[in-house]
Amino acid sequence: MTVYFDSAATTKPSKAVIEKVTQVLTESWGNPSSLHKIGMTAEGEIKKTAETLARALNARPEEFIFTSGGTESNNLTILGAAECYNRRGMDLVTTKIEHPSVTEAFLQLQKRGFNVTFLDVDAKGHIYLEQLKDAVTEHTILVSIMAVNNEIGTVQNIEKAGEVIKSRNPEALFHVDGVQSFGKEKLSLAKGRVDLLSFSGHKIHGIKGGGGLYIRKGVRLQPMLYGGEQQNKIRTGTENVPAIAAMGTAAEEAFLKLEANHAKVGKLRHAMLSICDELEGVRINGDAESGSPYILNLSFDGVRGEVLLHTLEGHGIYVSTGSACSKGAKSHSVIRRLDVPEDRVGSAVRFSFSPDNTESEVEYCIEILKKNIPVLRKYR
Amino acid sequence: MTVYFDSAATTKPSKAVIEKVTQVLTESWGNPSSLHKIGMTAEGEIKKTAETLARALNARPEEFIFTSGGTESNNLTILGAAECYNRRGMDLVTTKIEHPSVTEAFLQLQKRGFNVTFLDVDAKGHIYLEQLKDAVTEHTILVSIMAVNNEIGTVQNIEKAGEVIKSRNPEALFHVDGVQSFGKEKLSLAKGRVDLLSFSGHKIHGIKGGGGLYIRKGVRLQPMLYGGEQQNKIRTGTENVPAIAAMGTAAEEAFLKLEANHAKVGKLRHAMLSICDELEGVRINGDAESGSPYILNLSFDGVRGEVLLHTLEGHGIYVSTGSACSKGAKSHSVIRRLDVPEDRVGSAVRFSFSPDNTESEVEYCIEILKKNIPVLRKYR
Repeated sequence: MTVYFDSAATTKPSKAVIEKVTQVLTESWGNPSSLHKIGMTAEGEIKKTAETLARALNARPEEFIFTSGGTESNNLTILGAAECYNRRGMDLVTTKIEHPSVTEAFLQLQKRGFNVTFLDVDAKGHIYLEQLKDAVTEHTILVSIMAVNNEIGTVQNIEKAGEVIKSRNPEALFHVDGVQSFGKEKLSLAKGRVDLLSFSGHKIHGIKGGGGLYIRKGVRLQPMLYGGEQQNKIRTGTENVPAIAAMGTAAEEAFLKLEANHAKVGKLRHAMLSICDELEGVRINGDAESGSPYILNLSFDGVRGEVLLHTLEGHGIYVSTGSACSKGAKSHSVIRRLDVPEDRVGSAVRFSFSPDNTESEVEYCIEILKKNIPVLRKYR
Repeated sequence: MTVYFDSAATTKPSKAVIEKVTQVLTESWGNPSSLHKIGMTAEGEIKKTAETLARALNARPEEFIFTSGGTESNNLTILGAAECYNRRGMDLVTTKIEHPSVTEAFLQLQKRGFNVTFLDVDAKGHIYLEQLKDAVTEHTILVSIMAVNNEIGTVQNIEKAGEVIKSRNPEALFHVDGVQSFGKEKLSLAKGRVDLLSFSGHKIHGIKGGGGLYIRKGVRLQPMLYGGEQQNKIRTGTENVPAIAAMGTAAEEAFLKLEANHAKVGKLRHAMLSICDELEGVRINGDAESGSPYILNLSFDGVRGEVLLHTLEGHGIYVSTGSACSKGAKSHSVIRRLDVPEDRVGSAVRFSFSPDNTESEVEYCIEILKKNIPVLRKYR
């Protein structure tokens, strides 16, 4: 039995996505910048994805650009906005539990003289709106808050955060790292206060190498790459047409079934949570009640996360100990930033789901955990 | 009849490449940073490509990193080396006929206070080695010269250029934009003087979104993206496994048949050149005798390039007027930098070949040109 509970790291491309990629590589392989029909066919794929995203997120097609993935989208936003708006102010705000592609970008800006406030989070990973309010000043040019935490699944109240930010400083840009929420949590851009939204295709059954960025009309960013005329020069280089088209197909599927998937995956997470009743010494990292249904992070007292990961792998169950991006860098763990005991970090395992998972997979996993955790505790 | 003579813009993915991509999306879709088997399978695809490249270019697997394409590779090299070595000096050298992703990066560095020398080229697009010699100083930290020009196909003598650079300053890094030469012209990295080499998969029948960079052991670059631990932190973000694997497959095919393809495509270009005898007022932009066999740039007196492009398209022949990346930006044309009459720029058309093309396609194209050029000249 193969049970893949690591969908927050990456997802398996859907059948429709693989078909789309094959079609693009066979029929729409031209260079989207070419002036002839073969080029325009490829360009059409990009436009189609932009239109899909615009419909899904209530925005305009021309408000989307495409990047190589979530990391580039986050970097382009943060470094690009800081560079573009530094005459307006030097204050930046983010949280202590962002993805490394956000945190590291802010640390770079700190070195360049910007004042970065890293907001605290409570024991479940929620920011304090009062602290956010105090942090936003008249000199704040950018606030970046992730929608769903990639390690523990905590969902921030993006709407309220947007209200707080704009009430303090209407000109401060609000960026949301939506990599783990895109296609999974509802979001309407036109009516909201989000100015910039990062997302990635391979987290929703698209393919790697394709991400995107929503840039509200009127918002400017300094590009990171210099070269040709592509994408209004905000992101130059030949567009990754297959990955962009795949993201369109994946997004169409994800947004169509958003609520059904949310409910289905929620049941899986709920079922998985029963392990806390069945075994002693299991702690939930994050928000048991209102966290994302896609992510469940558990610490097993007296068991090292890596050891449990490989034990589960021996039974065909694939999980992770934290963010895949931070392989070998445990100091980055988000759990370390929560107000929880230190030993939770080393014993944490992330179970992350997709609508492809089934309840019997969860039952199987619980069974394996019940058998193995006591043994691992004995021989630690 | 469909005749695709625009392979310098992009190439059609080969059958083996499409099969490889499908296999990766079906079997090796894991996150290469995941600690479990599904992740390691994906990581294995990256290693395999690095090994293929190392064998083909006489380098070591660990000397390759992967990017989103040629533009990113060029930017990362130029901006990253300047940032890393500016304590050693502020002098940079490049040519007047580089790809925009090189030229624009140097223009950015010029704004940041670096001294950039843009080398002249002769009427055929060759740099003057004497001028290169004079330009390299003890404060030169980077020299960037493209191997094959993307618009006119002129081949620079990279070996001699390397000798000149290193004889003047052994510490000056030598970067080669190899996007149009990779898999097409022979190059041995271990024995040569090239420290950094950019290349791209989609120019050799791989797929878009995947490029790479050879970084000689010991050479450092400041990263452009900040985030996770991928690729020794030189290029962070989840690797584009399908595009990297596709590049490996494409490179294997290209390097295996390098000489045979070179000869085959050379015949096509030679056959195409006969148009100069058949029609009056056809000028060769570049080097008729020793240019790359893959690229032939011709100016047709009294005919606008765009008009000819669309006329040919009407007959199923796809060409370009210049670099696809510079769509709508004719001021960037390389031909403008050559010592040739101004009207050559507007009347230029690039025919670029691949081993998939045939002699009968060339004959057909010549026939169409012979019929249409006189008509277009009449109605200009």
